[in-house]
Amino acid sequence: MTTGGIRDRFRAQLRQEVKQVALRQLAEGGPGALSINAIGKELGVSGPALYRYFAGRDALLTELVLDAYADLTEALSAVARRLPDLAAAYRSWATAHPHRYRLLFGAPAPGADPDDERLGDAVRRLLTLLWPRVEPAPAVTEHAVSVWGRLHGFVSLEIEGNFRALGLDPDHVFAAEVDSLRSAR
Amino acid sequence: MTTGGIRDRFRAQLRQEVKQVALRQLAEGGPGALSINAIGKELGVSGPALYRYFAGRDALLTELVLDAYADLTEALSAVARRLPDLAAAYRSWATAHPHRYRLLFGAPAPGADPDDERLGDAVRRLLTLLWPRVEPAPAVTEHAVSVWGRLHGFVSLEIEGNFRALGLDPDHVFAAEVDSLRSAR
Repeated sequence: MTTGGIRDRFRAQLRQEVKQVALRQLAEGGPGALSINAIGKELGVSGPALYRYFAGRDALLTELVLDAYADLTEALSAVARRLPDLAAAYRSWATAHPHRYRLLFGAPAPGADPDDERLGDAVRRLLTLLWPRVEPAPAVTEHAVSVWGRLHGFVSLEIEGNFRALGLDPDHVFAAEVDSLRSAR
Repeated sequence: MTTGGIRDRFRAQLRQEVKQVALRQLAEGGPGALSINAIGKELGVSGPALYRYFAGRDALLTELVLDAYADLTEALSAVARRLPDLAAAYRSWATAHPHRYRLLFGAPAPGADPDDERLGDAVRRLLTLLWPRVEPAPAVTEHAVSVWGRLHGFVSLEIEGNFRALGLDPDHVFAAEVDSLRSAR
């Protein structure tokens, strides 16, 4: 292996480690807890040195958002393109990774750029999957947005503990919601 | 007016001022930005002295949540008990007060007690209003929860800028959602 190869491998590995620590910070304290300096300290690398791997806190945050879109999109791609399966996959991903789900659709993280084109592309890919009947089209259909809004409403109420506060069984609410979505197709 | 009366009035006024500053902190930096010491500094009162008015940061937060429930419930009570009016009132309140809406249904604020009985009562009152056909009943019906989930999905995607990111007109999405909710009654 050439020196360049080793350097590239090291670079990729360090970037991965930085993202893992960043995700733990998010899980523990939300986007406000994300700190390049704290990540550097944990990995034994100075903050300034880390900037050779990420242009800054905002770039790291954007990359975590894009990773999360890619991961959720992959989870949806892995199941049958039927609404109940897609809905269940969407829910499973969100409940398994609530902090990443919030990063996608919750209050905008400070520093995130809502006009970054890559984010718009990522959400469009996701919506195209969520509404399988959509032909490849430039615009996301109204129906896909409605399905997404309903899934998002359920999932975000669930991950923030709102059903529990009401003494409701989330599985039961979810089953009713999916039934209703199916009949609305 | 007795001395007790003046003291009570001062107490009520100071509590009101504390809550106003706290709401501004929330609007500017989210629940993580809420700081009793910073509030005291702004009002020229020592942090410890403020604890005579609020048992602590968590108690203040809980009171802000209860105020927000009361305010949203009042907004819903002020309109006709028809789904389109209720939905429009719910949306207006959320878009006018996104930081308070997040406080109600977003990621739990650190320190908030999800098992506080008063919170469960407040959300039940709200849901009873949202689904006008509900007779006074001990349990919240499935349908009320579904209406709520759909409104929440729409509203939370809107206030976090997700429709804008997709180039969608939120008014248009909302009108379609309300139509669909009406036909689902």
